[in-house]
Amino acid sequence: MLTQRQAGQQTTLVRVGAARIGGGQPAVMAGPCAVESKEQLLAAACLVKAGGAQMLRGGAFKPRTSPYAFQGLEEEGLRLLAEAREETGLAVVTEVLEAAAVPVVAAYADMLQVGARNMQNFALLKALGKAGKPVLLKRGLSATIEEWLCAAEYILEAGNGQVVLCERGIRTFETHTRNTLDLGAVAAVKGLSHLPVIVDPSHGTGRRELVHPLALAALAAGADGVLIEVHPAPEEALCDGPQSLPPMEYLELMDDLRFYGRLRKRSRMAQLEKAV
Amino acid sequence: MLTQRQAGQQTTLVRVGAARIGGGQPAVMAGPCAVESKEQLLAAACLVKAGGAQMLRGGAFKPRTSPYAFQGLEEEGLRLLAEAREETGLAVVTEVLEAAAVPVVAAYADMLQVGARNMQNFALLKALGKAGKPVLLKRGLSATIEEWLCAAEYILEAGNGQVVLCERGIRTFETHTRNTLDLGAVAAVKGLSHLPVIVDPSHGTGRRELVHPLALAALAAGADGVLIEVHPAPEEALCDGPQSLPPMEYLELMDDLRFYGRLRKRSRMAQLEKAV
Amino acid sequence: MLTQRQAGQQTTLVRVGAARIGGGQPAVMAGPCAVESKEQLLAAACLVKAGGAQMLRGGAFKPRTSPYAFQGLEEEGLRLLAEAREETGLAVVTEVLEAAAVPVVAAYADMLQVGARNMQNFALLKALGKAGKPVLLKRGLSATIEEWLCAAEYILEAGNGQVVLCERGIRTFETHTRNTLDLGAVAAVKGLSHLPVIVDPSHGTGRRELVHPLALAALAAGADGVLIEVHPAPEEALCDGPQSLPPMEYLELMDDLRFYGRLRKRSRMAQLEKAV
Amino acid sequence: MLTQRQAGQQTTLVRVGAARIGGGQPAVMAGPCAVESKEQLLAAACLVKAGGAQMLRGGAFKPRTSPYAFQGLEEEGLRLLAEAREETGLAVVTEVLEAAAVPVVAAYADMLQVGARNMQNFALLKALGKAGKPVLLKRGLSATIEEWLCAAEYILEAGNGQVVLCERGIRTFETHTRNTLDLGAVAAVKGLSHLPVIVDPSHGTGRRELVHPLALAALAAGADGVLIEVHPAPEEALCDGPQSLPPMEYLELMDDLRFYGRLRKRSRMAQLEKAV
Repeated sequence: MLTQRQAGQQTTLVRVGAARIGGGQPAVMAGPCAVESKEQLLAAACLVKAGGAQMLRGGAFKPRTSPYAFQGLEEEGLRLLAEAREETGLAVVTEVLEAAAVPVVAAYADMLQVGARNMQNFALLKALGKAGKPVLLKRGLSATIEEWLCAAEYILEAGNGQVVLCERGIRTFETHTRNTLDLGAVAAVKGLSHLPVIVDPSHGTGRRELVHPLALAALAAGADGVLIEVHPAPEEALCDGPQSLPPMEYLELMDDLRFYGRLRKRSRMAQLEKAV
Repeated sequence: MLTQRQAGQQTTLVRVGAARIGGGQPAVMAGPCAVESKEQLLAAACLVKAGGAQMLRGGAFKPRTSPYAFQGLEEEGLRLLAEAREETGLAVVTEVLEAAAVPVVAAYADMLQVGARNMQNFALLKALGKAGKPVLLKRGLSATIEEWLCAAEYILEAGNGQVVLCERGIRTFETHTRNTLDLGAVAAVKGLSHLPVIVDPSHGTGRRELVHPLALAALAAGADGVLIEVHPAPEEALCDGPQSLPPMEYLELMDDLRFYGRLRKRSRMAQLEKAV
Repeated sequence: MLTQRQAGQQTTLVRVGAARIGGGQPAVMAGPCAVESKEQLLAAACLVKAGGAQMLRGGAFKPRTSPYAFQGLEEEGLRLLAEAREETGLAVVTEVLEAAAVPVVAAYADMLQVGARNMQNFALLKALGKAGKPVLLKRGLSATIEEWLCAAEYILEAGNGQVVLCERGIRTFETHTRNTLDLGAVAAVKGLSHLPVIVDPSHGTGRRELVHPLALAALAAGADGVLIEVHPAPEEALCDGPQSLPPMEYLELMDDLRFYGRLRKRSRMAQLEKAV
Repeated sequence: MLTQRQAGQQTTLVRVGAARIGGGQPAVMAGPCAVESKEQLLAAACLVKAGGAQMLRGGAFKPRTSPYAFQGLEEEGLRLLAEAREETGLAVVTEVLEAAAVPVVAAYADMLQVGARNMQNFALLKALGKAGKPVLLKRGLSATIEEWLCAAEYILEAGNGQVVLCERGIRTFETHTRNTLDLGAVAAVKGLSHLPVIVDPSHGTGRRELVHPLALAALAAGADGVLIEVHPAPEEALCDGPQSLPPMEYLELMDDLRFYGRLRKRSRMAQLEKAV
């Protein structure tokens, strides 16, 4: 398996624009669930930049349970994302829903996201193997660790080694949280594979008040970064408002994440004890 | 919702070649997991026909967890399926993996199947809404009833009302069976929607010895038919051998299914009591 | 394992008062979730008897999620159950919550039930091994088939071979039904063990309208009987009203169950075809 | 609900011998799964003490899936635990399996543990409400957050407010880990209830190599402590060897936990940034 970590092998460094994932410093992607308008996206992008994240996420094509729900701004959304990159210098991460759309999304974005519902859309995975852009592969809602790594294998086998895995919560009987964030899987996959792993505590919990503690927990479990939903005004969001951080909470989270990140630069945390 | 059963509304009758699903008589689709060769497929088709099933299933494009597993005979498999239809008169049901492949699969098959992993592949669902052929929509491995009906809604909304739902087992903690067949969902969906519902006890259990009792249970729970994996020589099957019925077991199952089907023709089963 | 079915071994016949479970004819236990009053219980018992069931179920000690919910009439409930037996001749099945209560419950009841939450209450299981009364062992909410059989093994190993297993639905992500009734497990356990298995579609679905089809499906899957919640006036029930059958629906179900039962007396169902 | 956190209410401080849980500093319980012999337990206790944990865990009464598995040393095990307390000054935490055994276990132990399989053993919970010793309440394998808090409510309502909750992993479809550790539930419960919450990454993952990262993640998510299985020689353990830490790994973990603990003493982690 190309995804398997060989003895002594380092974590793969994935380059997304000027950002790096897997190099030791926690990477942060942040932004709204959906691109809704120029004003909303630019406000979000400035906030994301101000907080210190290196990548802007936002959906132009939205996979929605119901055909009657907002499906995204589509190519207009991609143009707005590119414009936000111009303004802020942030790298752009956005979802692609089907193999046929890979070229157009790759023309605008710096990283292509495979959503949880598409984790075993093998035609899409094969197309991404030829896309020439790094890929963010979310774990399926009920995918085992083995299936998740096999899905990544499709992309690597087709020629693209720049793949980042993203744990975003699995389906269980618990209904208090939207999903059950599986940080045990994060630690397990770090051992099994050389690919970087990031965590999405926004989808993983579905509750704004749980995003901050679970983002810190993700880094403590060994994640190479986090993906955070933020919105300039969550109460007006067209989707996922209840799990999006408002500006102040995002900035506070970034402060704590930075602190955790510096800690991890040292080889053994306990060596820092004297400083504390 | 177009999928919703209105008060007094009858179950939609779906026509697949000369076969009918939803008209009261249990429909049976049977065949091998994958089309492997001309000899294998024709032997299977003759067996399926001899047992009395109306539809032949067989995969030409196989969605496989690993990129290194057998991926199917692809278009050659479709040609063999069409040939088997010529020989036997059986209608052909086969899976389509992506929107781009809908035209070629529709050119050969009588019914297009959406696999569990693609239940929320919305591009595929929209393409099937325009395909001009009936669709078999399998429930996702961790899809709620509501999500399953919403996936069907994408197809109806795009213009295709000939949709059959297929329960094939969900993911749970139980490992003795491959999946947990959810017959409660079958009875529930029969109440919520006018679409016919069939059951796949082969994937639903993953064990040959459980296929017969669960197929009967599916009809008792109200299913409009069953989908059964049969193979002329299961021990040589390229995939899903352990859950495929060998010839004699398939013929015995068909005997019992026919008996159950006749029972259901009467309006109240208990009225038959005198005859028994 | 004492619970294991040896080659050629028949299903164990369990005797509960004058009733028999495991002898080929489907056994039916019916009654209210909880014993609420003398009037309620006698009305329920007369109904149960009129429908043709052989056993009356009703809870005197109720395991409730909240300490503030109705906990049952306790010993007074046991007295009312014994009185209902006097009036109707029905055998009495009721739950025992702890080892210390086994003697008092055994003094009144014909069969002692272990609830799903107590399936691995090993002190209780050991006490039931010495109780001298047959035991109804419900499957735990997230118990594997192997754990369920091991729980039965505790009772057999302690000296009591009169054990009936009861599938009552497992916990999954699906929320439309209260639990997911696992009929695949019923067929599997019938192969693995010589103990009779019955099914509780009332708890298994949590919805009155699904009880009838799932009870029939249970018998088709090979169950030795069913456990049905009925209430003279479900809308006034102190617990589980939404899943309890009102009188007419219970009587209709019994008609259909009787019909299914007669079918099963013949060695091969399809042999009946001519008669139909 | 007595378990509910009122606006502004502090976390309850639970006293276990000289140890404190809920006061801000992470509490650590460590020890072997089962008490196996005097030599094994004293070796484990010395190790636990040397690492700096305040409480010794060890099972004298073991709930085992099979009646033929090692069931624990029973009262002899309790005596050995008390002896280990004499030697080391560690507080003793051990499991009680049934209401009838509460007095004898309370006579030896400093804290009484309710195992996951007994979370809804209501007779046991009521008895613990009168036990006069603090209680460690593990979450059931498929218990919702609401059910877990209701189980604690039984103990508080019966008069005992010294209750600590313990997340130990839930049952899901994933088989790579023994259970799925639900740190989202930990953060959620910290908001809902004033009771302290600790985390058991040993049972939560079932794999030794995942215990260290998940223990750190638990503290980052807000847990008030951790419960760690350690064994002087895990390869000889009578149960749970694969998830038990050997001596050196335990000592390294304690170093890191101490460091995390000191961090948390400051009101805002980011305030420490200058020091780092």
